[in-house]
Amino acid sequence: MSLPNTLYLPELREMLAENNAAELREFCTALHPARTADFMEGLTPAEAWRVLQFAEMPVRVEIFGYFSRDKQLDIIRLADRQEIAEFIAHLPPDDRVDILNALEPELVAELLPLLPAAERRDILRLRAYPENTAGAIMTTEFARLPEDLTVRQALDELARQAAELETIYYIYIVDSQDHLEGLVSARQLLSAMGRPDTMLRDLMERELVTVNVTDDREEVARKVARYDLLAIPVVDQERHMLGIITHDDVIDVVVEEATEDAYHMGGMAPLVESYLDTAFLTVWRKRAGWLAMLFVAELFTFTALASFEDAIKQIVALSLFVPLCISTGGNSGSQAATLITRAIALGQITVRDWYRVLAHEMLMGLALGCTLGCIGFVRAALTPQGILGDVSHWELAWVIAQAVALICLWGTITGSMLPLIFKRLGIDPGFASSPFVATLVDVTGIVIYFTIAKAYLL
Amino acid sequence: MSLPNTLYLPELREMLAENNAAELREFCTALHPARTADFMEGLTPAEAWRVLQFAEMPVRVEIFGYFSRDKQLDIIRLADRQEIAEFIAHLPPDDRVDILNALEPELVAELLPLLPAAERRDILRLRAYPENTAGAIMTTEFARLPEDLTVRQALDELARQAAELETIYYIYIVDSQDHLEGLVSARQLLSAMGRPDTMLRDLMERELVTVNVTDDREEVARKVARYDLLAIPVVDQERHMLGIITHDDVIDVVVEEATEDAYHMGGMAPLVESYLDTAFLTVWRKRAGWLAMLFVAELFTFTALASFEDAIKQIVALSLFVPLCISTGGNSGSQAATLITRAIALGQITVRDWYRVLAHEMLMGLALGCTLGCIGFVRAALTPQGILGDVSHWELAWVIAQAVALICLWGTITGSMLPLIFKRLGIDPGFASSPFVATLVDVTGIVIYFTIAKAYLL
Repeated sequence: MSLPNTLYLPELREMLAENNAAELREFCTALHPARTADFMEGLTPAEAWRVLQFAEMPVRVEIFGYFSRDKQLDIIRLADRQEIAEFIAHLPPDDRVDILNALEPELVAELLPLLPAAERRDILRLRAYPENTAGAIMTTEFARLPEDLTVRQALDELARQAAELETIYYIYIVDSQDHLEGLVSARQLLSAMGRPDTMLRDLMERELVTVNVTDDREEVARKVARYDLLAIPVVDQERHMLGIITHDDVIDVVVEEATEDAYHMGGMAPLVESYLDTAFLTVWRKRAGWLAMLFVAELFTFTALASFEDAIKQIVALSLFVPLCISTGGNSGSQAATLITRAIALGQITVRDWYRVLAHEMLMGLALGCTLGCIGFVRAALTPQGILGDVSHWELAWVIAQAVALICLWGTITGSMLPLIFKRLGIDPGFASSPFVATLVDVTGIVIYFTIAKAYLL
Repeated sequence: MSLPNTLYLPELREMLAENNAAELREFCTALHPARTADFMEGLTPAEAWRVLQFAEMPVRVEIFGYFSRDKQLDIIRLADRQEIAEFIAHLPPDDRVDILNALEPELVAELLPLLPAAERRDILRLRAYPENTAGAIMTTEFARLPEDLTVRQALDELARQAAELETIYYIYIVDSQDHLEGLVSARQLLSAMGRPDTMLRDLMERELVTVNVTDDREEVARKVARYDLLAIPVVDQERHMLGIITHDDVIDVVVEEATEDAYHMGGMAPLVESYLDTAFLTVWRKRAGWLAMLFVAELFTFTALASFEDAIKQIVALSLFVPLCISTGGNSGSQAATLITRAIALGQITVRDWYRVLAHEMLMGLALGCTLGCIGFVRAALTPQGILGDVSHWELAWVIAQAVALICLWGTITGSMLPLIFKRLGIDPGFASSPFVATLVDVTGIVIYFTIAKAYLL
């Protein structure tokens, strides 16, 4: 998947030049749509759109769905407005909205009036849900039946709908006002084929796991993972059935969230496109922006150190331990932050647990600090007397041990509390693992270290 | 989900005390098995096992599947050997193996002979696959039919198997030697209900996405996500059908890999249990181990600095820029490492692309280094003369700018190459984002900085 699939490009281009309908039709249907899309990677958007014309609408929609987002947008930009509007009307409702959200607003304003009224309304409704909510990732196409059908009627109905719907394996039972009443799985229907007159109301499960339309998409992912669902129904406060979120979209959410978290931890803005496909200047801008901010923040270490210049001038050896002290704070802080961020992401703790976390981390910070302090004591005690001047080994070792222990405690408390505070403020807790926090702990670490050193040695 | 569900505990215990079979049976079946498991969280393993006796075997297996791994193991340890062996035989093949792998070997040796021969063979075969391979996470239970059935026969057969199998929505078509020939989805069968005499061979898809039994589980997750599959078939070199991996297990893989990566980046060994449930000493051991290793590694910054002690003694101001210089290396290194690690995880680049990555990152490191160098130059030029002694502003600014630029370039190259080198050596590339690498870059950063400083200023 890493190299463009250029193997069939010459053949494809030849087919296009000859307008060879039979072979192009064969190309569009012979493979899994995702593979067909892979083989079309090297084509220009215009060529890709021409090839797609040889596929039936459902296959065309599927192949298009596996193109990169950039290629999708380019195709929409260049295609005939009327033609592309008809095509957009056939896209799955959730993908359609994602794509329109990524297009230029003027183009969307041009396209919307060309769409059939039902699709236009659906798009406008879905676009109203804030990003990262269940509403923003749900699809409004799902199998829906009333409870007073028999198994035989339901199977007939399902056979009729099977070609159109993305997911037919869960059938949602709704009342006349579209309230969600229950669920019948295709598995249950198949098992009940021998009793074709059973009513759906007697078969359906009434205790359903649902999400609210305004729930965070991470909450959705957590529930689907916990309950091993193929799809989860999305309802409003009155339990109206609004849509479903399917297992494949949940995998995408989990992958995207993990990528976002990793970028935050690594100190950069997430890339939308693939690493080698993104323009050099775009990557530079995203990386330089973060690095420059971190660099400016880190300039405060200079300011902090400069304020202790007298101490350093008197005992140069003190400056040799600075990197050790500040990295202790950074490491213990980012360790605690990672642990708590991940526990929040996995739903193991919530903001309300903050006092339990604080108590736990204060004890842990003390235990960790003493461990590192002991190592620091030994190392400092082994410093050659030549470097130390007239400071005694034991005094220096005692200062280092205390400073390391205190900085470790401080880093652990800061690192564990920040994700919870961020979460409470509606900020992604992942930012707490970012180098920004390490920088904060660096500066305070310098202050702690020299304050202790001055108290004992000067 | 964060707090134990203690609401129903008194009622549950009362039912147990009264041996109230009717109510306990009702409790086991009224809710989704995952919720039932949640409500049983506060029970002791012995109590939980007693409650489970009131559920039919399929429900008992499902509820048990939602218990925490620790509770599952405790139940197996305390239950009657013969009884629990019979229960284990009913667990899904993939879960069963995971659980046995977590048990004491002596206990497994006691249990295995009590299992039916077929299940025992299945367990021994699955346990032979290395951890993190497709073989280790697949289940051997799937719907399998010969190609010479009609749609009607297939539906009847499926209705018979529906209750037993984990997944019936994909039916795999195999020949008499169990070679994978194709796939028919339940959706296709339902759509074809109107043509009940169609042969499966005329309906099935022959172009399948498969994984090899020795493939890495990350590769499995990538394919399932790319092709939006409900399940992916696992085959050997000769295309024998060995098992399937279902969408819910893939979500678990994605979540686990993300958690592992995050822990590596944060500098600690992954926790198996939930944050607040893990014993204090266990957490301390995992955290202190990493922090102590990092601390010992970071002691080299002292050694590196001590070797430049003369330079510091002559120009104390040089020591004030040390944290700035080393954090530049750490930040640019971890940024590059995160980017490349994530691109590897998402399948965007492979080890073979190393020269493209190197060329890209050398240019990028230069561009980023110049950006930060400029900021460093300005800040150093603004240093009050009092701190500098007899070093000129401009000389110092020039040294800082060069050092920052070079360290940034060095950090970027190291950070981008290490994940690829680790991958090549079979080590998790995620380790390259870990603080260990930052520590390495810290020490080399000191050497670069003082080498430049000595060349210009001494």
